[in-house]
Amino acid sequence: MTKNIHDFLTPPARGLQTDGPNMSIVLSSRVRLARNFEEFPFPEHASEAQREAVLEKALETVQSVPQMAGSFSCAMSDLDGLDKNILMERHLISREHAAKSSGSGLVVGKGEHLCVLINEEDHLRMQALCPGLQLMAAWKAVDELDTALESKAKYAFDSKLGYLTACATNLGTGIRVSAMLHLPGMALRDSISQTIQAVGKLGLAVRGLYGEGSEALGNIFQISNQRTLGETEREIIEKLNKVLAQIIEQEKNARALLLEKKPKSLCNQIGRAYGILSNAYTIASKEALNLLSLIRLGIDLEFFPESYRTTVDELFVLTQPAHLRRNYNEKLTPEERDAIRADMLRERLQNLERPVPKLPKEIDSSRERPGQTD
Amino acid sequence: MTKNIHDFLTPPARGLQTDGPNMSIVLSSRVRLARNFEEFPFPEHASEAQREAVLEKALETVQSVPQMAGSFSCAMSDLDGLDKNILMERHLISREHAAKSSGSGLVVGKGEHLCVLINEEDHLRMQALCPGLQLMAAWKAVDELDTALESKAKYAFDSKLGYLTACATNLGTGIRVSAMLHLPGMALRDSISQTIQAVGKLGLAVRGLYGEGSEALGNIFQISNQRTLGETEREIIEKLNKVLAQIIEQEKNARALLLEKKPKSLCNQIGRAYGILSNAYTIASKEALNLLSLIRLGIDLEFFPESYRTTVDELFVLTQPAHLRRNYNEKLTPEERDAIRADMLRERLQNLERPVPKLPKEIDSSRERPGQTD
Repeated sequence: MTKNIHDFLTPPARGLQTDGPNMSIVLSSRVRLARNFEEFPFPEHASEAQREAVLEKALETVQSVPQMAGSFSCAMSDLDGLDKNILMERHLISREHAAKSSGSGLVVGKGEHLCVLINEEDHLRMQALCPGLQLMAAWKAVDELDTALESKAKYAFDSKLGYLTACATNLGTGIRVSAMLHLPGMALRDSISQTIQAVGKLGLAVRGLYGEGSEALGNIFQISNQRTLGETEREIIEKLNKVLAQIIEQEKNARALLLEKKPKSLCNQIGRAYGILSNAYTIASKEALNLLSLIRLGIDLEFFPESYRTTVDELFVLTQPAHLRRNYNEKLTPEERDAIRADMLRERLQNLERPVPKLPKEIDSSRERPGQTD
Repeated sequence: MTKNIHDFLTPPARGLQTDGPNMSIVLSSRVRLARNFEEFPFPEHASEAQREAVLEKALETVQSVPQMAGSFSCAMSDLDGLDKNILMERHLISREHAAKSSGSGLVVGKGEHLCVLINEEDHLRMQALCPGLQLMAAWKAVDELDTALESKAKYAFDSKLGYLTACATNLGTGIRVSAMLHLPGMALRDSISQTIQAVGKLGLAVRGLYGEGSEALGNIFQISNQRTLGETEREIIEKLNKVLAQIIEQEKNARALLLEKKPKSLCNQIGRAYGILSNAYTIASKEALNLLSLIRLGIDLEFFPESYRTTVDELFVLTQPAHLRRNYNEKLTPEERDAIRADMLRERLQNLERPVPKLPKEIDSSRERPGQTD
C-alpha cells in the first residue's frame, strides 16, 4: 500500500484524459453505485463505534477483491485539507465526503479508474470513471466490482424496493450515471441554458465542474440521471446515452454554425485566449479554466495542432488551486497561486511549437484583401 | 513636386519617431506660429477671391524659401477625405484644417519636419515637428522658416501687440509650443488627472492624441502653452520645458513605483497586452493603441528587446484607421478594418523574435518559489 496519496495519483487525472470515444465533447463517463451493509445503520444514524466498524469492514472487503489490487486506502482522518481538495479536483471524492473525518474512508484503484468512498452518505459509494463517452464500460467495471463485493458482504436489500440507501433519491438501483461534457460551442452561442432546461425536463440533472451547485467553469458540464427506482441500470444508461448523443449533435452544430457565421469572432476569441494564457503573469483559476476551454476548442477545430491536447488537458488539472499548492508550496497565498499558475501556463504553452493557425477556408474567403500598396 | 501625398509621406511619421532625446516619455516636440499677410483680411472675413489670392501668394512664397525645398504642396480641395485623415493621424494638419476645401492649402516639407497650413484660422500656420524633447530645436527651425517668409511678405504686425491673429488667443507671438507625451506609468497608477489639473493651473493645456477634445488614446497626451502675449517665445518655451521636466520626473517615478510595489501586476498587464496584440483576429483602433502603449512601456522597462521599438512605433501609426484604409483598401468597413488591423499586428509582432522577458530582479525575489515536487 502506498503511504502517500500524492505519490499514488499521477497527472493527468483520468477524469480529464482524452483518449476515449467522442473525446472532443465528452471528457469522461462515470457510473456510481450506492450500497449499504445490512447489519449496520446508515452513516447518519450510526454511532461512532458503528461507523468505525463499517470503515474497518469496508476497507477489508474492498481491498480483498481482485478489481482493487494495487489500490490506495486511507481513513479520511489521515488526509489533510490539501489532500482532500486534490481528490475533489480529480473528481474522486465529493465535497460531502471531503468534509468527513474519523469513521470515513477511501479506496482508490490503480490508475484512478475505480474508487470507493466509505461512510459518505451511504456505507459504500463506488464509482468507475472512463475517459470519453463509454457509460457501458464504466457500468461494466463498477458492476463487476459490486458483484465481487456482494459475494463477500451482505447488502441492505429489499426485494420490492431494491438496494436500500440513506436517501430515497438513490433507492432501487442506487445508480448514478453521469458524463462530463465540454460545451464551448453552445456556450459561445449562448444556447446552453435552453439545453439545460430541456435536459431537466427529461429528469436529468445538469451541474458544473465540481458537482452540485457549482459553476460551469471552463464550459464543463456534468449531466446525470436523477431517478434510480423503477428502471434497470441498463435502461438508465441507454436513456442517458440517447440524451448525450443529442447534446453531442447540438454541440457539433453549434461549432459548425460558429465557424460558418462568425469565423472571425471565433478565431479572435480562441487566439486571444492563447495570447493571454501564454503571456500573463498572474491569472485566477476561473479565468484559466475558461481560456483553456477555448484552447481545447481550438484544438478540436484544428486551429492548434493535435500535439497541444495533452498539455492543455494536463493544465486543466494542474492549474487548479490544490494541485498548484501541492506541486509548489502548500502555504501559497491566493496571489502567489495566481502568479505560479501563470508561470506554469506560460512555460508549458511557450514550450510548445508556436502555433501557425490553420484557418478554415471560410475565414480567409470571408473578406476581400487587396494587395498591400505600401 | 510630388503629385500624390501618399507617395510623399513615409512611415513612421516624424511625430512618432523615436530617436530624439527623452524619447521614452516625450514622443515629439512641436512649435507652431500663426501669421497673417498684412494686405488681406483674416480667412473668416475674406471673400472667396481673397482667400484664393492668399492661397496663391502663400504657396508661391512658401515654396520659394530654401527651408521648403523638395516640399509637397496642394490645395485642400485636391485632397479627399482619406488623404485628410492620414494627415491628421500624422499630426500634420488640424481637424479644423481637414474641414477646409477651396481657398485653403498645405505645404509639407521634406521628411515632414516642417509644415505650413494656408488659410486655416490664420493665413499661415507653420509648424516644426521634432522627435523627442527638443522644443528649442523645433523653435529654431520654425523661426528660420518664419524669418525667410517674412523677408518675402509683409505680415500683419502691431508694434504694441505683436503679430495680429484671427483669434485673440494667438495674438502677440502667435506661438504654440507643445509636446506629445507617453505617460503609461501615471495612467496605470491613476495619477494622471492630478497632473492634468496642476498643469492647467499653470496656464498650460492638456489634450489627447488627436488634439482638442480628443481622448488620451494609447496614454498619449499633448501639453501646450495657452498664452501667447506678454512673454517672449524663449520664455514660453523655457516655461514649458520646466513643466515637462517635472512631468518626465513624475512619469519616471510612477514607473519606478510600479516596478517596486506592483511588479507582478505590471508584468501581467504588459504580458497580456503582448499576448492579445500578437494573437487577436479582430481589434479596434482604441484597444490597439492602448495595448501598444503597454508594449512601448515594456520596451522602456527592458521587458522586451530594444529591437521591438521601431516596429511598435510604426504600428502606432499604421494601425490607425486612415492609414489602414490607405494601405489595404479604401472601402474597408469598420469590421474589415478591425480584422486587417489584427492581421497586421499579428504578422508584425510574430515576425519579431519571441520575447524572453527580462524581469527586473524585484519580481523574481518577491516570492518564494520552492522546487516542484512533481
